[in-house]
Amino acid sequence: MAPRRPTMQDVAREAGVSTATVSRVFAGLKGSTSRETEERVRTVASRLGYVVNAVAASLRVQYTHSVGLILADISNPFFSRLASGVENALSAAGYGVLLGNSGNTVEEEKRLLRLMSEKQVDAVILASSAGTGEHIREAIGRGLKIILVDSELPDVETDVVAIDNRLAAETAVDHLLDLGHRDIAIVSGPIEASFDRQRLEGYETAFRRRGLTPPADLMLKADSTYEGGRAAVTALLDTGLVPTAFFASNNMMTIGTLAALHDAALAIPETVSVVGFDDLEWYAIFNPRITAVAQPAYAIGRAAAERLLQRIAADEPLPPERFLLETELIVRDSTRPLRTVPDGTPDLKR
Amino acid sequence: MAPRRPTMQDVAREAGVSTATVSRVFAGLKGSTSRETEERVRTVASRLGYVVNAVAASLRVQYTHSVGLILADISNPFFSRLASGVENALSAAGYGVLLGNSGNTVEEEKRLLRLMSEKQVDAVILASSAGTGEHIREAIGRGLKIILVDSELPDVETDVVAIDNRLAAETAVDHLLDLGHRDIAIVSGPIEASFDRQRLEGYETAFRRRGLTPPADLMLKADSTYEGGRAAVTALLDTGLVPTAFFASNNMMTIGTLAALHDAALAIPETVSVVGFDDLEWYAIFNPRITAVAQPAYAIGRAAAERLLQRIAADEPLPPERFLLETELIVRDSTRPLRTVPDGTPDLKR
Repeated sequence: MAPRRPTMQDVAREAGVSTATVSRVFAGLKGSTSRETEERVRTVASRLGYVVNAVAASLRVQYTHSVGLILADISNPFFSRLASGVENALSAAGYGVLLGNSGNTVEEEKRLLRLMSEKQVDAVILASSAGTGEHIREAIGRGLKIILVDSELPDVETDVVAIDNRLAAETAVDHLLDLGHRDIAIVSGPIEASFDRQRLEGYETAFRRRGLTPPADLMLKADSTYEGGRAAVTALLDTGLVPTAFFASNNMMTIGTLAALHDAALAIPETVSVVGFDDLEWYAIFNPRITAVAQPAYAIGRAAAERLLQRIAADEPLPPERFLLETELIVRDSTRPLRTVPDGTPDLKR
Repeated sequence: MAPRRPTMQDVAREAGVSTATVSRVFAGLKGSTSRETEERVRTVASRLGYVVNAVAASLRVQYTHSVGLILADISNPFFSRLASGVENALSAAGYGVLLGNSGNTVEEEKRLLRLMSEKQVDAVILASSAGTGEHIREAIGRGLKIILVDSELPDVETDVVAIDNRLAAETAVDHLLDLGHRDIAIVSGPIEASFDRQRLEGYETAFRRRGLTPPADLMLKADSTYEGGRAAVTALLDTGLVPTAFFASNNMMTIGTLAALHDAALAIPETVSVVGFDDLEWYAIFNPRITAVAQPAYAIGRAAAERLLQRIAADEPLPPERFLLETELIVRDSTRPLRTVPDGTPDLKR
């Protein structure tokens, strides 16, 4: 037989107050309850093992104290660190975090947004893989508060917490151009997602600012995974085209790129230079140590969570804001100047 | 002005059925509703943009269709892959996954279990960092279904989905002993957690089976993080004690161990051999390629989720079961035979 759960009545009787008072205390409502009474109620509740029925409570106070977090790929270290930042901030504030993993697909993202609405979350932090935001506008229309992380959609007016993807990619490619490279491949996820598109734009801008045409045959697009990056680079190398440098535009594709170059026995940086994305701990002890664009994944998650708490607590709706966190290009040993023959053209024999 | 949300009444009117029928369809209750009627209700609901108020519905059917997932550290790739397996299986079944991150602390684990109870989840998948399970028994007493993953507590009777941690560690250390190593350090998380304790037991068993005494001064314990592993190994090396081999008992501590050896300019495998834990993609292209114990993180998550769905669907309570998934020692280049001088003793000059 399951033990009987203590009820609100039990707590009220033991604490010598009305059930309405117990209810007010646990709903966090400001009111006429004194601090002493509140503490007595909490002490008694704790002693009896009383657990608030938050679901029933949410029907009364109109908040579930749950927040949705929809990520493109939780097994990608960037997103898992971001999730850690979100969870730490929200859990400390008494919020539950409902996790959704879209697997980089817009269909799944739509389904998860609907699931989150059904679960009556107060708000959603969404790393969108979409190129347009009709489904997000619809969710906002249904009353859902949404904060976009690591993504930005021109047709959605809402808070955005991200990095400047264009600038981050442009800085990475600039570094390679400064070193004399021109045949620079970008290894990118599918371009529908805003972060992928913006990073590709940054790549193109770096070329154009110098009056150069970005090499269309070196813009590789594949699934944003280890396997995707590895297959795309291998397929390029199989055509006989060997760029002198690679820019991998996310961390899973960075490993995939390194693996494909390893398979093809192309030496880094002697034969090809590589700039990776995100700064994972092993980049600094890899051989060679990996030059990479570092972005503050955990801080992005925390900032999004804090903005969301602000938005929930605000008496009036807040205007949408854009929070861009800083990135840093960390130059290590995987990039070096292009070797040239005496007349200044690339040394293609290498 | 916010648009009016369509109600159950709107759907019932449009579909020409009673609100009770609409309610039954969305609660997933078997009954007298024909398949045609159910489809008509769902089509109308979809057209109107009707979203079930799952919170109110859960009060009627006694299930919230939410499951808690409490992990020790979501930013650790083992746990993020496990989370991906859990989320994929549960989300496909229409369940929401409420994420909790205990940060390897038992206090936070207790708080999260209580939060999950308040949120009225149907069950919790818990990777416990605890050594004893009083708080888990209490939660089960409150009516919570719990499945332990990657952890096992002698005083808690419930399903366990994990690997055989003792055997996995013993196999790793056996490999080093076979290669002639005796001064083998283990780099372990705090021993309170069952997985850490079991891996340490496996390390000790490997020695004892050969009539050897496990070297107590080489059992390093620290936070299960990159920083923890790095600091513990650096502190050992600073004492002047240099083991001939290291076994790092989780993936974050594997990177920490490699970083400390890198800092100390100790060559792998020429000077020290290293066995890592988990098999991350970069292990296979690191220099040297890392010998490691591979465990199926994603499959552990999926298996736990599937068992949980079984348990929820069962008419009678199921007896607790123990599901152990297979691990594999992948031998690569970071381990090699101990060099000895001609009389058979270790070549300490190396």
